[in-house]
Amino acid sequence: MTGMHRSVRGGVTAAQGFRAAGTACGIKKNGAPDLALIASDTPASAAAVFTTNRVVAAPIVWTRKVLRRPEMRGVIVNSGNANACTGDQGLIDAQTMADVTARALGTKADDIAVASTGVIGQPLPAPRIVQAVPRLARRLSRTGSTQAARAIMTTDTTPKSRAVEFSMGGKQVRIGGIAKGSGMIHPNMATMLAFITTDAAISPPLLKKGLKDAVDRSFHRITVDGDTSTNDMVLILANGASSATIHEKNRKSSGFQDALNAVCLDLAQAMVMDGEGATKFVTVRVENARDEKTALTVAKKIAQSSLVKTALFGEDANWGRILSAAGTAGVPIRPESVDIYFDRVQLVKGSILRGDDQEKRATRILQNRSLTITVDLNLGSASSEVYTSDLSLDYVRINADYRS
Amino acid sequence: MTGMHRSVRGGVTAAQGFRAAGTACGIKKNGAPDLALIASDTPASAAAVFTTNRVVAAPIVWTRKVLRRPEMRGVIVNSGNANACTGDQGLIDAQTMADVTARALGTKADDIAVASTGVIGQPLPAPRIVQAVPRLARRLSRTGSTQAARAIMTTDTTPKSRAVEFSMGGKQVRIGGIAKGSGMIHPNMATMLAFITTDAAISPPLLKKGLKDAVDRSFHRITVDGDTSTNDMVLILANGASSATIHEKNRKSSGFQDALNAVCLDLAQAMVMDGEGATKFVTVRVENARDEKTALTVAKKIAQSSLVKTALFGEDANWGRILSAAGTAGVPIRPESVDIYFDRVQLVKGSILRGDDQEKRATRILQNRSLTITVDLNLGSASSEVYTSDLSLDYVRINADYRS
Repeated sequence: MTGMHRSVRGGVTAAQGFRAAGTACGIKKNGAPDLALIASDTPASAAAVFTTNRVVAAPIVWTRKVLRRPEMRGVIVNSGNANACTGDQGLIDAQTMADVTARALGTKADDIAVASTGVIGQPLPAPRIVQAVPRLARRLSRTGSTQAARAIMTTDTTPKSRAVEFSMGGKQVRIGGIAKGSGMIHPNMATMLAFITTDAAISPPLLKKGLKDAVDRSFHRITVDGDTSTNDMVLILANGASSATIHEKNRKSSGFQDALNAVCLDLAQAMVMDGEGATKFVTVRVENARDEKTALTVAKKIAQSSLVKTALFGEDANWGRILSAAGTAGVPIRPESVDIYFDRVQLVKGSILRGDDQEKRATRILQNRSLTITVDLNLGSASSEVYTSDLSLDYVRINADYRS
Repeated sequence: MTGMHRSVRGGVTAAQGFRAAGTACGIKKNGAPDLALIASDTPASAAAVFTTNRVVAAPIVWTRKVLRRPEMRGVIVNSGNANACTGDQGLIDAQTMADVTARALGTKADDIAVASTGVIGQPLPAPRIVQAVPRLARRLSRTGSTQAARAIMTTDTTPKSRAVEFSMGGKQVRIGGIAKGSGMIHPNMATMLAFITTDAAISPPLLKKGLKDAVDRSFHRITVDGDTSTNDMVLILANGASSATIHEKNRKSSGFQDALNAVCLDLAQAMVMDGEGATKFVTVRVENARDEKTALTVAKKIAQSSLVKTALFGEDANWGRILSAAGTAGVPIRPESVDIYFDRVQLVKGSILRGDDQEKRATRILQNRSLTITVDLNLGSASSEVYTSDLSLDYVRINADYRS
C-alpha cells in the first residue's frame, strides 16, 4: 500500500481544476456550517459506491439516476437533515438541490450529484438551500476544502481531509478527498460520506473499478457489510486536468490505485478515530487463517463485539471476550492453536493466558490511544485487518441525545 | 401459547422429586453465593441445548459427553468463573466438579451435568468447590430453588425463576426452572444458563425435541444466532415422579409443550428485563412479512441495533433508525409500504411520519418501562417477534468494569 506518492495539502481541492466551498444555510439549529459544494471546472468522469441499505434516501435515488451518464460537474451536500424517509417531497427536494446548483454553475441538473446527512424522517428545509446556493457557488475556491469538510460534519468532532500526489510520465497527478462519519463498526449506522477528486484522466468504468477496489480495503473495513445508513455514499470525480491518462494497463503500475487506496484508507481511519465517543483506535488483525474471507469474518466479529469494545474502553485486557467473539464468527477455528497479541506482546498462547506479566504489559498497551490486537489462528496463511474503536459512555450519551 | 397451565411457586424444585441448594464457596471475591446444586431423587431423562460458539468451555465439553447417555441425577453449577479457555486443567476441573458431586449424591460422575459462568480465562479454584459440595448436598431441599437461582447469578440483579402446573389424566404435572443471564441482544455475549425440571415421564429424544421447540421460541428470541458465549446451556431433567407420561402423540395436546414454552419464554423475558443496565423491555414485532424467517430476520436486526437501543434509552421516538435498521436486514422490503407502531399508536405510514401528534403520543409511550414496537411490512402474512432492551449508560459502565 506504500506507493510512490507523497502527502499534499488541499483535500478535495488539491487536484487541479477543482474548487469547493462551505457555508451555514440554517438547517442546523446551532448555526454551524451545513451546506457544501464541490465543483470541477470541466466535466469530470464520475463513479460512486452507495449504501446497501434497502431503505434509500432521496439524494441517493437522485445521484444513482444521474450517474447513469457518468459525467459530472459537481456535488452539493447538506448536513443536519438526511432527506430520508421523506416520500415524494424528498425526491423533489433532492432534485431542487441539483437544479439550483446547476443554475449557479451554468450547467444542467443531470451534472450535479446530491448528498445529505443528518436526521431521518424530517422534511428537508429546501428553501434555505435554494437561497444559499448562489452565494455558495460564488465562494467556490481552490482553498475551500476545509470549509466544505466542516460543512458536511454531523456528530464528527473534526473535519476529515487527505490528499496525495504522484508522478507519471513527467506529470504530477493528485488525488484528494474529504469525508464525514464517526465510523464505529456495526453499532453505528451513522451516515458515511466521502468525496474524492483527481486530476487524472480516466474512463468512468475504470474509475468505478478503482473506486470499488479502494473502498473494499478502506471504508468497508470500518463498517460491517450490510450495516449501512440510508445515505452512505462515496463519490469520485476525475477531470483529467493533469493530462495524465490512466488506463487498464497502468492503473496499478502507475501508482494511481495505490494513491487512491491511501486516500480512502486514511479517510476511513480518520472516521474510526473520530468514532462517536471513541477514546481509542484499534486495528484488529487476524493472521494465518485458511483464507482471506475467513480472516476478515473473524476480524469483523471481534471488532463489532460490544463486550470487546467496552473492555477496551475500560482498558481491561479481556482476551476471553476476544476469543469468545472469534468463536461466534461461524467459521472453523481450533481454540488450542489460537494466539492473541496486544501490539507485540503475546498475551495468549493456544487459548490460554501466558502469564501475569504478559497481562500487565498488555494492560499498559491498552492505555495508549492506538493499538493493534492480533489474533493468530495458526490454521493457514491468509490475513486481514479491520479498524474499530472502543465503546464508551460518551457513545451512549451522544446517541441517546442525537435528535434533541 | 396460553395453555391450560397455571403458575405455581418453587422454580426448579416445583416438580416432585427435585431438590436444590445454593451456597458461597469463595469463587466470588465479594462472598456472594456462587455454587448451586440441583438434584433429582431418581434418575431423570435429560436433554440440553448448548452454545454454538466454536470456543467451548470445559463444563460444556463435559456435559455434552455425559449426555450421550441421556439420564442424569443432577447438575452442579458455579458462577464467578466460566472455566473457559483454561486448557486441559479446565477439563480436569470440570470432571472434578462432577466427581465430587456424584460422591455426595451416592451416584457416579457420568450422572452429573456441570455448568459454569463468569470470567473467561482464569483457572477455576476447584479446591473451593470440592470443599463446599458435601455441605451443599446436605442442604439440598424442596425449597432450595431461590438459593440456587441466586448462586448462579453474575451481573444479574435478581434471581430468575418460574414454574407452572397442568393436569393430564387426573395427574398434576409440573415444569419449573431457574435461569441467569442479562440477555441484551447481540452486544451481549454474557453467558445464559437455564435449568428446567419436570416430573413428567418422557423419553430423552422426545424431551430433546420439546426443549428445542421451546428454546427456539424463547431464548433464541433474545439472542442472535451465533452470538453466544462459550458457556451457554439450557438443560432439562424429567424424572417421571408425577407418573404422567408424555409421548409423541400427546406432547402438544396434553399441554406439556405449552407449559414448557411458557416456562422458557418467561425465563428468557426475565433475562431481557434484567439486561445489563436495561431500563426498558421492548418487544419488536414484525408483521405481514413474506415468511416467518424474513420477519424474524428483520425483527432481530432492529432489536440488535445499538442506534435503536440508545434511542430507546433516550426515550426518543426515532423511527428513522428503526426503518434504517430494517433496511439492513438483507431481505427485500418495500419502504413505501412500511408502517411502524409504538404500542397501538401508528407513528409511520409508508415510511413517512404520520404527524407531530402521533410522535408526541409515541414519545409518551417510550416513557413506559415496557413497550412493543411493531413494524408492518405489508408484504405477506407472516409475523415474528423478539425481545430486547435499551442500551444505557449503565450497560457500558457494567461491561467496562466487569473484571475489576
